[in-house]
Amino acid sequence: MGSEVSVLGMGSMGAALAGAFLAAGHGTTVWNRTPGKTEAPAARGAAVARTAVEAVAASPLTVICVSTYDAVLEVLEPVSGALKGRAVVNLTSGPPGDGRQTAVWAGRCGAGYLDGVVMSTPGRIGDPGALLLYGGPRAVFDAHCSVLGALGDPVHVAEDPGLPSVYDTALLGLMWGTLTGWLHSTAIVGADSGGGVSATAFTDVARRWMNTVGVFMNDCARQVDSGSAAGGDFPLDLHLMTMDILVHASELRGIDPEFPELLRGLVRKAVADGHGAESYARLIGYLRKR
Amino acid sequence: MGSEVSVLGMGSMGAALAGAFLAAGHGTTVWNRTPGKTEAPAARGAAVARTAVEAVAASPLTVICVSTYDAVLEVLEPVSGALKGRAVVNLTSGPPGDGRQTAVWAGRCGAGYLDGVVMSTPGRIGDPGALLLYGGPRAVFDAHCSVLGALGDPVHVAEDPGLPSVYDTALLGLMWGTLTGWLHSTAIVGADSGGGVSATAFTDVARRWMNTVGVFMNDCARQVDSGSAAGGDFPLDLHLMTMDILVHASELRGIDPEFPELLRGLVRKAVADGHGAESYARLIGYLRKR
Repeated sequence: MGSEVSVLGMGSMGAALAGAFLAAGHGTTVWNRTPGKTEAPAARGAAVARTAVEAVAASPLTVICVSTYDAVLEVLEPVSGALKGRAVVNLTSGPPGDGRQTAVWAGRCGAGYLDGVVMSTPGRIGDPGALLLYGGPRAVFDAHCSVLGALGDPVHVAEDPGLPSVYDTALLGLMWGTLTGWLHSTAIVGADSGGGVSATAFTDVARRWMNTVGVFMNDCARQVDSGSAAGGDFPLDLHLMTMDILVHASELRGIDPEFPELLRGLVRKAVADGHGAESYARLIGYLRKR
Repeated sequence: MGSEVSVLGMGSMGAALAGAFLAAGHGTTVWNRTPGKTEAPAARGAAVARTAVEAVAASPLTVICVSTYDAVLEVLEPVSGALKGRAVVNLTSGPPGDGRQTAVWAGRCGAGYLDGVVMSTPGRIGDPGALLLYGGPRAVFDAHCSVLGALGDPVHVAEDPGLPSVYDTALLGLMWGTLTGWLHSTAIVGADSGGGVSATAFTDVARRWMNTVGVFMNDCARQVDSGSAAGGDFPLDLHLMTMDILVHASELRGIDPEFPELLRGLVRKAVADGHGAESYARLIGYLRKR
């Protein structure tokens, strides 16, 4: 059989990946260690390989998504002879070091290797907004970017195959900061309006506001890179003053002020150190302990 | 003189508001308590009123943006006779109670009154993405929405003229949660790549990721409103596990783990209470103390 892409591992994420390739019209071969899980993709037009080596041999590109990096090697080591001249994209979750080691191993096999992370739940795979990050040789990414685009928004973050995993962890931190800030703000507005403003109605406004927050993010990023932190018309002094209002507003409405208090603590330190006229970007120095 | 809109107060924000009305082609009258500050808008085509009453009488709509609500009343009380049948939009910053009191006073004068907040720095006024929130009678908003649209994205949040101020404080909290999470993630990726990934390059990826975070926000909002919190394929147990990785990743790279530790503390409480299979939306119950 000859197909465009082979998918190894039919867990919930692997099945979603295969489904997205099929939906985009790419000839797809699937394989799973235990039988049964290949029936659904087969019904949607996937070829089913009886062995992993048959799957790898079927396509120029193999995508593997299994439970651990140990499982990746258990699957790939016996088929290493078939990898030469082909590309392997590993979307299994794991620490940065595992991605780097697996890249070295794949290089010895003569395979082009990308380590990737899926920044999405399986249900959103195939949505153009679902983010997938890849690390490894740019040329391997460029050669397969168009097929990988069936899964969502493909971004090559670095030549270093360990970096997507670091991005994964870091971006989840950004998500938690955002979601916790959003929950806190939803609680305040809900309490103030006596339930008159639903979370959904508030969130419609919050999402419009996130456009502006994104502009602030870009501004701060340029400042972090340049090492400057001019406060302009929104200096830390003004952040601190309005953070006092948020802490007070939380207490007034019976909302736990711990979250804004922690944020205020950071700003207070910077203001106490004489950075009151500088911008939020200055705070990165307080997060870096050494 | 007859114009479409009058702007009282030519501080940096008032001047930006007048500039945006002029840029959109709206006939604009300006007034400031002290002279001199009206020269720039006059050079751009604004009519300059010698007195506040002359400014109010010139347009069906008056926008006022001064330093405090006390200053609002000092300007408007002497001209209350001219307000009848006109609309006043107050974009001065202050607490919710001040907006509500001013609305009552304006009602007695026979004016249509909206209390608003400008969720933008002066430099971004006039950008279609700049968010401005208004509270007060829907009919007054609808009558002037098109002219107010020159300032940015106009949103009527409630009939309650106190609510925009509450939104203001709450949305700043969302911004701080997001920006702090973003700074933390920027610090981690920067440390890991040895400076190889600039903050600007990381932020390009972070902003794409925010689309997905926005989808999570919408999902959580629906759950908060319905009172359900099914965890689906991203339950609190999984959040907790990946938060452990973030805390560890922070420590490994010399980044202060206090921020992710606080977020993890919230999730830990919920998991300890048996909510591990539920979603992030469940945490709102832990922010509401009473």
